[in-house]
Amino acid sequence: MATHRFHPTRYFNAIGVAEPCLRVADGDTVVTDTVDASGLDAREVTVASRPNPMTGPFFIEGAEPGDTLAVRIDRLTPNRATGWTYSPLALTVLDPAAIIDRPPQQRAVWSIDREAGTVRLQEEVKGLEDFAPRLQPMIGCFGVAPAGGQALSTATSAQNGGNMDYRLFAPGTTAWFPVAVSGALFYLGDGHACQGDGEITGTGIETSFEMEVTFRVLKRTITWPRGETADDIFTVGNARPLDQALQHATTEMLRWLGEDYGLDARAASHLMGQVVRYDVGNVFNPAFTVACRIAKRWIPKRQG
Amino acid sequence: MATHRFHPTRYFNAIGVAEPCLRVADGDTVVTDTVDASGLDAREVTVASRPNPMTGPFFIEGAEPGDTLAVRIDRLTPNRATGWTYSPLALTVLDPAAIIDRPPQQRAVWSIDREAGTVRLQEEVKGLEDFAPRLQPMIGCFGVAPAGGQALSTATSAQNGGNMDYRLFAPGTTAWFPVAVSGALFYLGDGHACQGDGEITGTGIETSFEMEVTFRVLKRTITWPRGETADDIFTVGNARPLDQALQHATTEMLRWLGEDYGLDARAASHLMGQVVRYDVGNVFNPAFTVACRIAKRWIPKRQG
Amino acid sequence: MATHRFHPTRYFNAIGVAEPCLRVADGDTVVTDTVDASGLDAREVTVASRPNPMTGPFFIEGAEPGDTLAVRIDRLTPNRATGWTYSPLALTVLDPAAIIDRPPQQRAVWSIDREAGTVRLQEEVKGLEDFAPRLQPMIGCFGVAPAGGQALSTATSAQNGGNMDYRLFAPGTTAWFPVAVSGALFYLGDGHACQGDGEITGTGIETSFEMEVTFRVLKRTITWPRGETADDIFTVGNARPLDQALQHATTEMLRWLGEDYGLDARAASHLMGQVVRYDVGNVFNPAFTVACRIAKRWIPKRQG
Amino acid sequence: MATHRFHPTRYFNAIGVAEPCLRVADGDTVVTDTVDASGLDAREVTVASRPNPMTGPFFIEGAEPGDTLAVRIDRLTPNRATGWTYSPLALTVLDPAAIIDRPPQQRAVWSIDREAGTVRLQEEVKGLEDFAPRLQPMIGCFGVAPAGGQALSTATSAQNGGNMDYRLFAPGTTAWFPVAVSGALFYLGDGHACQGDGEITGTGIETSFEMEVTFRVLKRTITWPRGETADDIFTVGNARPLDQALQHATTEMLRWLGEDYGLDARAASHLMGQVVRYDVGNVFNPAFTVACRIAKRWIPKRQG
Repeated sequence: MATHRFHPTRYFNAIGVAEPCLRVADGDTVVTDTVDASGLDAREVTVASRPNPMTGPFFIEGAEPGDTLAVRIDRLTPNRATGWTYSPLALTVLDPAAIIDRPPQQRAVWSIDREAGTVRLQEEVKGLEDFAPRLQPMIGCFGVAPAGGQALSTATSAQNGGNMDYRLFAPGTTAWFPVAVSGALFYLGDGHACQGDGEITGTGIETSFEMEVTFRVLKRTITWPRGETADDIFTVGNARPLDQALQHATTEMLRWLGEDYGLDARAASHLMGQVVRYDVGNVFNPAFTVACRIAKRWIPKRQG
Repeated sequence: MATHRFHPTRYFNAIGVAEPCLRVADGDTVVTDTVDASGLDAREVTVASRPNPMTGPFFIEGAEPGDTLAVRIDRLTPNRATGWTYSPLALTVLDPAAIIDRPPQQRAVWSIDREAGTVRLQEEVKGLEDFAPRLQPMIGCFGVAPAGGQALSTATSAQNGGNMDYRLFAPGTTAWFPVAVSGALFYLGDGHACQGDGEITGTGIETSFEMEVTFRVLKRTITWPRGETADDIFTVGNARPLDQALQHATTEMLRWLGEDYGLDARAASHLMGQVVRYDVGNVFNPAFTVACRIAKRWIPKRQG
Repeated sequence: MATHRFHPTRYFNAIGVAEPCLRVADGDTVVTDTVDASGLDAREVTVASRPNPMTGPFFIEGAEPGDTLAVRIDRLTPNRATGWTYSPLALTVLDPAAIIDRPPQQRAVWSIDREAGTVRLQEEVKGLEDFAPRLQPMIGCFGVAPAGGQALSTATSAQNGGNMDYRLFAPGTTAWFPVAVSGALFYLGDGHACQGDGEITGTGIETSFEMEVTFRVLKRTITWPRGETADDIFTVGNARPLDQALQHATTEMLRWLGEDYGLDARAASHLMGQVVRYDVGNVFNPAFTVACRIAKRWIPKRQG
Repeated sequence: MATHRFHPTRYFNAIGVAEPCLRVADGDTVVTDTVDASGLDAREVTVASRPNPMTGPFFIEGAEPGDTLAVRIDRLTPNRATGWTYSPLALTVLDPAAIIDRPPQQRAVWSIDREAGTVRLQEEVKGLEDFAPRLQPMIGCFGVAPAGGQALSTATSAQNGGNMDYRLFAPGTTAWFPVAVSGALFYLGDGHACQGDGEITGTGIETSFEMEVTFRVLKRTITWPRGETADDIFTVGNARPLDQALQHATTEMLRWLGEDYGLDARAASHLMGQVVRYDVGNVFNPAFTVACRIAKRWIPKRQG
């Protein structure tokens, strides 16, 4: 149950098999730094290149192909006072006819006020003088090495996780990933100070972080990433179009309700039909992300 | 500001131009009965045929092509004690490989307890012994006659509304529809006692209702349905795949934020990027439904 | 086996139930005029309004719901010397990032040379000085009244046919449509002098025609339109995205190979896997069109 | 202009940066062996594992990031007398409702008759007694290392090529790939003795080959794979859904017609609108493949 402090000096733009930056035991905690999506660190110095440079990979002892790596997100602390976004809305979320009149892409800077717990645009924008949404840190891109010798760009996501940009990957959530190689080889980065559904400007509020996560190896097999918050369980599908991402997430939830809660396909259908929620993680990256989410209050006690 | 009580004797399976069942004034309220998706009325007698037989059309005086019809949902009261659903999950929400082992479709009956404010499966299903989600009435299918002489099946939806199956079309919500013909010609029906996101079993809890709605004619033009609840404003896109439904909804929200709240495309992007929520109305019907939703707390005061 | 000459005076922008313009017997031939997609007739006078004004509906005696209407396209003769197209390419066929630099939409006029059997742009365009593709007449929009009281815009297509814009709906082809109402109620129009795959400028070369078709009522049931040319049989799916249109067409071909040629699902798979061809009818209209086509040389003799 | 004979002893299931198996000069020819999709070689011995084990990578001297690698397919000779396919049709090409009655997956063996130039099922299948389609060899999977340190599974395809399963990647065709790393790092394999559009059984007739290809480095930049046959030029998009693959291919063709043939967006639109053809390479793999194809007879002389 050691806590490791790790300061990266090398970053990765693809998630695959690489020399581990650190080996940790099952149950250990890591506190580490991540740079923003464009490679800016806590001092706003460019130390890595796009897209989404990752810290890692961490080798978790005991994790073998077919296992599941549980990653509890203990803390996400922005380590500088600003983040940035793009505008206007991304091409993927607009009726094509609306693209013709779209203003050119610009970068905007936001102040991150950790005391007040808010973020705020630095430039003055008409109508947004009072707009100060809550500081809600999340991890944009994290996951484990995929199977078959693949190395997948941190621009996209797949069964192994990656650039899912889902706002519930936040402090207090435990994320599960399917392990495909010995040691799992876990990467993380691309923190956002805030982000709505869909990452519809192509960015959250991109900034650098100190992140603290705790690993646990589960001797069980999953197909797609899963997660648990204080209130909910959820499954994640990554694909295009959104329909397919939703299908993967829904099918993974069916499996979970069967494995852990004793619900067969028909019982799961009765439950999900009335209380399921779908969240759009991102509708911007090469693979879109949809989460299938159920409040714990509705599910039977975990079995066994 | 009259209140009309109307008892239908004829039902429609397509939304188009037909002889009005009643003419009402701008500002009037209608209290009427609707049958369930299969045509069962309050006494569980089949009085109409599938799909989604509609009550209507109501002719709203003063509504002309290019106007908007605002429909406030005042009250949705189930008028019988049971509703029904299908299981298992619909083909559209499953990974195709998971369809092979899908159990055959069955109909289940739910008790609707208006006192307790819950619904409950009548048959005993392992793991769901304590499952009693809240009674949350909603309108599955409603809208106005489309343009160009079309008559659209109540199985699907389009710019004129229709079978959107979105759970926020609930009491307290005001829905807006684009008027395409004189009098708007408004239809409603297909009430659900409860439904999760996506209508993923192909049904909500289908039952008959007494519905009360109030009409207002707005001299303004919209492209897709819009809505307002106590907490949120939302826009609705209906299309396949989900991506396109989301694009329509997002583009309509951009228009709304510009028209009423003075946000240009860049300002709207900054706001939506941090606080937008997407809801999946249905991912079952021929056209899927996505809502783009924003909490009122984040938007500037309405202008003008 | 009569031949009827019919000159329309009224046109329709939706395909549904309407008063027949003419009643004909099973086996009869109709020679009639059609206007172009914008309503221009042989004299280039606007006699009808967009989209795709239809001639019809023709009531075919003996056609009942559940039957199939076979329509042999005997002859398509442009009855004026010009047609028109739009440029540039449609929004639906471009990478969204390429939409930003798209030139504005313009209308171009083409000369139709029936002697030479070619079409040619009237304006001079750099690089296209010698471009004279073949005159290849086709029907853009035709079909029968849909089920359930629907009236579907001639901008789109569905199981009943409609605006499929598939270039093999050409002289010599016999098209089959599923009959949903007594008399079938057949409409036709929107002729093109030429068109590539996909109708990717949103138009073929739009012009007015004299069309000659012969009807036959088949006492058999189909689900989606089918067709037969001198060399091929094909089935048509109309939906979005293209994937779904392709699924409908492929599934209908499976049915046909079973019904008429004695191939079970496995045998049909072996055959289709090696020799199937897919054509993109249109990738522009609200519903896209994909044809699944097989050369007759590969299929066993028709049975029974 | 040397000709190299290379016998692989190691195979790859991902296309990325790896130690070259051979270094060749610009203009050189390689004659090499490939195993089938499941790793069976000429003697039907399993020497590699799924999916689609690749021969390579070949380092082409002078190829640098931003260049284009032209690969002329000189010869594809099956080096054993059998190949195999799966049945029934893949899940991706069926209406989901048709999946329920789908027979279980089976493997079938085909005889490859190089003398007769045909392929033929070994087992007897009712209705296919005379079915002997032509032997039409093609390369299922080939391409160059992608950018950014990625290694992409040979199950899928992207801008760098990969598992496109397009039947026009056949003898006589020259394929172009965008070079992302020094030496290009070219891989090839997954030969098919025959395949219809779409690879709709999830396989072509899978067999091992002796393949002969000739490399040329072009000092020009492309975005997606391109190809040239005796009669046509074509561009290839790889994505889901088919719509997006088609958009990538169409946009790449627009670029090509501008770069080499002097057609601006409007002129290209006029030409493509009348004569474009779309081919579905595969509608089975994680990324689908669509080719945008134009007959050379329609395009102006190459400029410069």
